[in-house]
Amino acid sequence: MKTSHTNRKSGGVTTPKGFRAAAVACGIKASGQPDLALIVADRPCTAAGAFTTNKLPSAPVLVCREHLRLGKARAIICNSGNANAATGNQGLRNSVSLCKTVAQQLKLPLAAYRQVLPCSTGIIGRQLPMNKLLHGVAAIIPQLAQGPRADAAAARAIMTTDLVPKQACRRLKIAGKTVHLAGVCKGSGMIAPNMATMLAFLTTDAAVSAPQLRKALKSAVAASFNRISVDQHTSPSDAVLILASGAAGHPPIQRAGRDLKAFQEALSDLCRDLAYQIVRDGEGATRVFRVRVVGARTLADADRAGKAIVDSPLVKTAVHGADPNWGRITTAAGYSGAAVQPHRMSLFVGPRRQVCVYRRGKPTQLSARAVDQLHRFMKTDEVTFTLDLGLGKAEAEWLGCDLSRDYITINAEYTT
Amino acid sequence: MKTSHTNRKSGGVTTPKGFRAAAVACGIKASGQPDLALIVADRPCTAAGAFTTNKLPSAPVLVCREHLRLGKARAIICNSGNANAATGNQGLRNSVSLCKTVAQQLKLPLAAYRQVLPCSTGIIGRQLPMNKLLHGVAAIIPQLAQGPRADAAAARAIMTTDLVPKQACRRLKIAGKTVHLAGVCKGSGMIAPNMATMLAFLTTDAAVSAPQLRKALKSAVAASFNRISVDQHTSPSDAVLILASGAAGHPPIQRAGRDLKAFQEALSDLCRDLAYQIVRDGEGATRVFRVRVVGARTLADADRAGKAIVDSPLVKTAVHGADPNWGRITTAAGYSGAAVQPHRMSLFVGPRRQVCVYRRGKPTQLSARAVDQLHRFMKTDEVTFTLDLGLGKAEAEWLGCDLSRDYITINAEYTT
Repeated sequence: MKTSHTNRKSGGVTTPKGFRAAAVACGIKASGQPDLALIVADRPCTAAGAFTTNKLPSAPVLVCREHLRLGKARAIICNSGNANAATGNQGLRNSVSLCKTVAQQLKLPLAAYRQVLPCSTGIIGRQLPMNKLLHGVAAIIPQLAQGPRADAAAARAIMTTDLVPKQACRRLKIAGKTVHLAGVCKGSGMIAPNMATMLAFLTTDAAVSAPQLRKALKSAVAASFNRISVDQHTSPSDAVLILASGAAGHPPIQRAGRDLKAFQEALSDLCRDLAYQIVRDGEGATRVFRVRVVGARTLADADRAGKAIVDSPLVKTAVHGADPNWGRITTAAGYSGAAVQPHRMSLFVGPRRQVCVYRRGKPTQLSARAVDQLHRFMKTDEVTFTLDLGLGKAEAEWLGCDLSRDYITINAEYTT
Repeated sequence: MKTSHTNRKSGGVTTPKGFRAAAVACGIKASGQPDLALIVADRPCTAAGAFTTNKLPSAPVLVCREHLRLGKARAIICNSGNANAATGNQGLRNSVSLCKTVAQQLKLPLAAYRQVLPCSTGIIGRQLPMNKLLHGVAAIIPQLAQGPRADAAAARAIMTTDLVPKQACRRLKIAGKTVHLAGVCKGSGMIAPNMATMLAFLTTDAAVSAPQLRKALKSAVAASFNRISVDQHTSPSDAVLILASGAAGHPPIQRAGRDLKAFQEALSDLCRDLAYQIVRDGEGATRVFRVRVVGARTLADADRAGKAIVDSPLVKTAVHGADPNWGRITTAAGYSGAAVQPHRMSLFVGPRRQVCVYRRGKPTQLSARAVDQLHRFMKTDEVTFTLDLGLGKAEAEWLGCDLSRDYITINAEYTT
């Protein structure tokens, strides 16, 4: 997950041209905190989404999937405090009804409710409080605005157990025009009361056809949000949405080529940045760790090994204790399902593979200096392991966080 | 994991006729505790084994697999304190050399070293201290004996972080003769310093051909040791071994039929008993939970759902907090890869499905009385969940333990 710093820029979802955002407290959260966010494009955008693979998807996920068949969207409406999951047909009707209210209040033609994408996160098994939401939509529309305050308001309103709001922005040139990409996301491992949910809303003023946007999003998500794990529990509500307004004014990107490549790189970089922020805010997490699996026979193998390592509670507790536990890491790869051969495998610690702790099936003998260096690396905020499987050329980088007593406290002391 | 109490009997590995056992402290464990166990049959036995699927198997696992090709064995030698894993070719040579010493000291023909099955558990990445082991073997042989003291000594000598020794015994009649099955095992989630290891050694005086014994063991392991999870980290050293002496005196079981069925049932029951003891002693565990997945389309689906549920840190922390968190359980099934349909799925709590908390995709409304009953069930030592997928007739029962702050403490505060 290398992030190229050259295009980094502060900003949020309204930095790309053609977008406004707002947030209000509509009363779903008992705390009175903001719990409804709206992102609106001035004109219909090309749009794409990536969703949870959980077979118990929430109502909003089903509605978003259906609405995105058009490849066009104009607004994202997201409430926190209630996930509208495990709510049956009534839940579906509520999500659609919310979209219709948004379209109506935005004075769009009735059929344009299909250009509204709904998201919900929070408690599950309860119907959305529609009255509160309908009043909330009426209150939020007059507040739609551009700029840092609007961006920050949206970022806060989608939070649940997150400790910090999360946003990121990138800038690049396409055909001589300045193009922006920005995003906001939430997720910290567990959403009260019942599960992990990760949501990300991306905007761009690039002009990209819907099919190319879909492909670019799929590829960016695969290399970012799909390679992080806080607690391996895939939520029924996970969603990543992107709207492309085309307001940057360059000729539309409709096929593979230099422009699409530049756009893809910026989009992947943006997604990696947001994914990193989610892991960093993982529940109870004190430390992030990167697992670079290299030398795998196939990409699928690299992913299997990476996922097994970042999911292993033994690896996570070792990282928590700053212990360079080569045995837990190599044996996690051993049960991952990836092709591995002990005598081909080596493990390095440090951002540039500085210390080799395991070489071709056996632990190494380290000098006192190397041991010192190793312990320094293990105590940093961000630990990097490189596992070389020695079997091929495929590689993947996964991101995890440590497992602390606080995680147990947060997750055991809830009462359904 | 129903256990039939009718055949339960106190006893250990020397209860079946034809076996002796002993244990000594040979100096591998710094504590001076017993760390070497030997189980010996008076005559060659038919034998079978089941081993870890980790692709980084320890040296003893490789040697056991090779020796069991003969389908015959006579002794099991097991040390604790050093796993002989990640030790390369030297590790293999050491395991073989240990077998040769045992054969020699037992005054068996040299070639009979292949009838000795070696096991090791403990620290990884270090060569076995062969000198200590060879002296240990010389000291252990004169102590070989039958009876409860020998059984208990063997059970203690194979322990690592286990808090209690674990053994079980069953009795049945085959062709009018009394037949015994007994076993000893170890495992509690994590073995200092590097990984979970589970070992079980089973003896029986039944007469069973090697091919039938292999099949019976495979089937018993699939329904017991392979359906438990403490922390989902599959050790490179896991092994289950069985020796059948034939001393009970009934005609040998050589094909499917009533006798094999009776033997199979007793063997599966014995393995479930031992597996239960391992989970109960799970590191930091305060509570065991059973997950019965019923109504699955296939057995593989039932296993996928069961495994995902007992492995989920969110489910484990909920059980720790005595929270009947239907959302975490159903969504774990949702990401397990099993075929599921929300509107067909129901979840019950209680040993006899007393309280339905989720029915056909939605949480249920519970009476005050049902809520009381639910909370009583959740606070017991052993919580039972029944998840009905409503799609078929396959079922599987998995066993897990809760995730506590103590697990983190035990596993984060080790220094490699």
